Amino acid sequence: MTARSIATVCLSGTLEDKLSAAAAAGFDGIEVFENDLIASPLSPSQVRRRCADLGLSIDLYQPMRDIEAVPRQDFEANLRRAARKFDLMTELGTDTVLVCSSVAPQAMDDDELAAEQLRVLAGHAADRGLRVAYEALAWGRHVNTWEHSWRIVDIADHPALGLCLDSFHILSRTDDASGIAKLPGDRIFFLQLADAPRLAMDVLQWSRHYRLFPGQGAFDLPAFLGHVLDAGYRGPLSLEVFNDVFRQADPHRAARDAMRSLLWLEEAHALRSGRAEIARPPAPPQLLGHAFTELAVGGAAAGTIAETLTAMGFTHTGTHRTKPVQLWQQGRARILLNGTITDHHHPDLAEIGAFAVESDDPGRSAARADAMLAPILPRAHAPAEADLAHIGAPDGSSIFFCRTGSDGWLGDFTPTRTGFELTAETHSPVGLTGIDHLGLAQPFDYFDEAALFYRAALGLDLEDETQYAAPYGLVRDRTVRNDTETLRIVLSSTLLRRGSWAPGVPDPQHVAFETGDIFATATELRRRGAPMLDIPANYYADLDARIGFPAPELGCMAALGIMYDRDDHGEFYHLYTELLGSRVFFEIVQRVGGYRGFGAVNAPVRMSAHRARRLTLHPNS
Amino acid sequence: MTARSIATVCLSGTLEDKLSAAAAAGFDGIEVFENDLIASPLSPSQVRRRCADLGLSIDLYQPMRDIEAVPRQDFEANLRRAARKFDLMTELGTDTVLVCSSVAPQAMDDDELAAEQLRVLAGHAADRGLRVAYEALAWGRHVNTWEHSWRIVDIADHPALGLCLDSFHILSRTDDASGIAKLPGDRIFFLQLADAPRLAMDVLQWSRHYRLFPGQGAFDLPAFLGHVLDAGYRGPLSLEVFNDVFRQADPHRAARDAMRSLLWLEEAHALRSGRAEIARPPAPPQLLGHAFTELAVGGAAAGTIAETLTAMGFTHTGTHRTKPVQLWQQGRARILLNGTITDHHHPDLAEIGAFAVESDDPGRSAARADAMLAPILPRAHAPAEADLAHIGAPDGSSIFFCRTGSDGWLGDFTPTRTGFELTAETHSPVGLTGIDHLGLAQPFDYFDEAALFYRAALGLDLEDETQYAAPYGLVRDRTVRNDTETLRIVLSSTLLRRGSWAPGVPDPQHVAFETGDIFATATELRRRGAPMLDIPANYYADLDARIGFPAPELGCMAALGIMYDRDDHGEFYHLYTELLGSRVFFEIVQRVGGYRGFGAVNAPVRMSAHRARRLTLHPNS
Repeated sequence: MTARSIATVCLSGTLEDKLSAAAAAGFDGIEVFENDLIASPLSPSQVRRRCADLGLSIDLYQPMRDIEAVPRQDFEANLRRAARKFDLMTELGTDTVLVCSSVAPQAMDDDELAAEQLRVLAGHAADRGLRVAYEALAWGRHVNTWEHSWRIVDIADHPALGLCLDSFHILSRTDDASGIAKLPGDRIFFLQLADAPRLAMDVLQWSRHYRLFPGQGAFDLPAFLGHVLDAGYRGPLSLEVFNDVFRQADPHRAARDAMRSLLWLEEAHALRSGRAEIARPPAPPQLLGHAFTELAVGGAAAGTIAETLTAMGFTHTGTHRTKPVQLWQQGRARILLNGTITDHHHPDLAEIGAFAVESDDPGRSAARADAMLAPILPRAHAPAEADLAHIGAPDGSSIFFCRTGSDGWLGDFTPTRTGFELTAETHSPVGLTGIDHLGLAQPFDYFDEAALFYRAALGLDLEDETQYAAPYGLVRDRTVRNDTETLRIVLSSTLLRRGSWAPGVPDPQHVAFETGDIFATATELRRRGAPMLDIPANYYADLDARIGFPAPELGCMAALGIMYDRDDHGEFYHLYTELLGSRVFFEIVQRVGGYRGFGAVNAPVRMSAHRARRLTLHPNS
Repeated sequence: MTARSIATVCLSGTLEDKLSAAAAAGFDGIEVFENDLIASPLSPSQVRRRCADLGLSIDLYQPMRDIEAVPRQDFEANLRRAARKFDLMTELGTDTVLVCSSVAPQAMDDDELAAEQLRVLAGHAADRGLRVAYEALAWGRHVNTWEHSWRIVDIADHPALGLCLDSFHILSRTDDASGIAKLPGDRIFFLQLADAPRLAMDVLQWSRHYRLFPGQGAFDLPAFLGHVLDAGYRGPLSLEVFNDVFRQADPHRAARDAMRSLLWLEEAHALRSGRAEIARPPAPPQLLGHAFTELAVGGAAAGTIAETLTAMGFTHTGTHRTKPVQLWQQGRARILLNGTITDHHHPDLAEIGAFAVESDDPGRSAARADAMLAPILPRAHAPAEADLAHIGAPDGSSIFFCRTGSDGWLGDFTPTRTGFELTAETHSPVGLTGIDHLGLAQPFDYFDEAALFYRAALGLDLEDETQYAAPYGLVRDRTVRNDTETLRIVLSSTLLRRGSWAPGVPDPQHVAFETGDIFATATELRRRGAPMLDIPANYYADLDARIGFPAPELGCMAALGIMYDRDDHGEFYHLYTELLGSRVFFEIVQRVGGYRGFGAVNAPVRMSAHRARRLTLHPNS
């Protein structure tokens, strides 16, 4: 079992904050980032003791910069500076220092000189029982590939000089790092891991602002880790992630997120390589779809939502035996209205408080989530009630795992006159057959955490982020889904924390229902008086200019508020209700062919329409 | 007088929000961004009427994309789409459409074909009395310079086809746009203006996320505007700024900021070119330095601050005749303690509520600021009191213009026993001689607005932004100063809106005092029991490793909490008090030689020390 480590620079706060967060998340060790130590009131020996008390080893001191391939006079000054840092490392109780390849203008393109100077430095380190890990920065002046850094280390040929491999510096420049597997493993002194989104960006800016924890970005880190372990590296797996959001977010949450990323990476690597020596969490059971979505509703919103569900063809089929919770059904679409939250300050509260996933093995789903550091939530249930497995999601809501029909959660409800077994007549009166997806707005600080959470804890597939310009700022979307496309969640957040002037904070959430005939469904919804959202005529004029529709169809779409998108695989028709209560709306979608998206291109129009409607109803909101 | 216009894409909100904001800020016209119209419930003719009611012309419809240099079949589809948009433009009452150079993969590198297709498009436009403005995107597939777009327009040779020049697309690729002056002015159909910081970044990302209003960035827009006007262009000066922050900030403020940027640009151009036809605001009078800084203090903080000022060698020299305001002095450093704000919820309130600038002509300073759209604030003053000119700053504080000695603001104060004319003995007991600078944390949404505000309204020099990693996230700094370096303000803000976990929100502000002998001053401050901030020993160990100091000096600095920085021009010594009340601290600085900075490299250490000290005093804060 390899040790797990994290660089202090990954986390927000003072050094003391960072150490306690890393320890609480279960890390075995840390990399001390120099600036964190400099700003700390703790002396190096106090830091050493604090780490020992917390069960943390100090695996690396970093960084030394612009050391090698420099004129003799500069190198002498560097040695003097290094000697001071070596003293400090001894006091700190760490034996490895990171030396980044030179970026200084005076650095020379001279491998022999670089090797000679690093050999001298390593000699001084060895005299004190220390060692030097040399890393090629992706933007190093002359040395910027791992191959080049290895050539220099090889020439220098000193036992106290080895490599530091950093996945960002390597994978930002090449997708193929398989050559690493041929390195002698004992010359790899340290391994730093970071993921990142694919961005068209200056590599230094990309590195310093946009790194992510493994599993959150686009790099193939399981393969990368495989190459390094194949080489024989057995040192710590250490995270070094510079990220603008993590830098200012709760370090305890970020550290837990970081640990989850290593657990995910180790499992992904083990699955790919078939290595048995790596402990694995319980495999995620197959998830089969959305079981129910539970809306927390305040006193005033409860009526609005119930009326809307009625107009949308849902039937109130059950009432919870012990709590003010109603079950509403249509086809396989189930909505719970939970009135237990009686916050008199927010009578219009309406939000997705929980959702339930159909799992092949609910108990193992929960055990899996637990192993992936999802909080297992205690549930107050009466003795005869179902004990559903139940975890906390990053946005503060809850996720249940269940198996409708076999685990008996329906038994907690007393059937209404209609009963759970809906008749043909009441089964799907407007044609809604199930839940297509949920749209869950995430807290700004935890958007990337949420992406990895759903990927690692639920075993869902994670797609790349997309961004679009919305009326109140740029919005980020990432989708998670199961492989059978029966469970889909669109996570969204603002690119910047939203301005104080913008309405609708926190951002709305929604439940999207599927239909096989959106025109019939929409017509019936209008006839029944459901509060459907009108879409501006300008939208249809543009749609027609862009795509072209037969006039009758376009007229119908405009009259019914149906929006449209298409991709290489198929077509997408969708429409919305008004905003209901504080932050919920419903969507109805029809997928034609293999369309995989969610109509993000139409989201800004929907947001403006929601805003316009709110202003009509509440002119001062 | 040229008309002033703004693209709706610059502003946050719905189209209606944007129109009302543009009109309120005094714009003559707008560019309608297609997506804003599509999302609006107003029909094109309603938008036309709304604009007419607001006194706004619609100067441009934008954009059409990927129109030209494409295969015949694509072009026919493009013409069909364009016809629909021409209908819409007619309804909207605008006569010019922006066509961006193709980025599509199917676009061909064929100037003749591009010209031929644009000529056909222009013909259709001309049939309806419309015209086409062709713009080279900096990332256009084949056409990405203004010269190339002009070659194509020249070949096409159609009266309804001309150029749109966009300063970003041009200046992001070259500093020399002087060739524009030789264009026939009547073929420049439209001018879009945007500034930007110099960033090492993919040009498309740079353009879509980081544009700024003129005067906020690094481009030489006065020269650029000169070339375009020299060519004979007489159309509107129109702003097109894509900026992530502005996209989510109050559009009324952003529109006012935008208008200020045009006023600044027009003046800067007029000053450079000597053009008399452009109306100019009153020239900024010479600003001579800091007259006083006024701290708003709550009941509990007032005592802390007064004790601190006393320990720092300040003398309470006067009391306001009618208000609970005290004047404290040392040398030319003057601090007012204003206790008029009695917010019982915040007894520890301590913040910079106002500051006063010595002006050669206070009345003209105020008139200048007024012309640059700074709010002139009414001031309640008793009949015999001085009527100081007084404006609102972007952070909600106030700025006074005065001339200490001649305009008699001191006359509003009753001297204490000591009196205003300090004796040699009380003049500067710890050696503080004046105010070196103010450190003003700015609201996240208005950091760039603040930079232009100080540049335009006060006539100060604005420096480029710098960023540094601080314990609770990245911090942006920009400095404004007068040419004699007697007035300096460091504006700061977080790069992201700060996380909810971080302490110290809103961020601290500070007043920095100057001394000629920081060691003597620091020794005396410690002797007098001033609440000085201790700096960790680790800082000094690193300083010594980096720079090397004689041991006695370094020991002294550590004992006194003196920090150090240097640049090519000189050295900087500085130290801090603890945080006082809610968000204020004092700094003491000594500049040696021509050092121009503010020791930003040390700011993270200071922040950590402030945090550690707060935790010592208030363990649960």
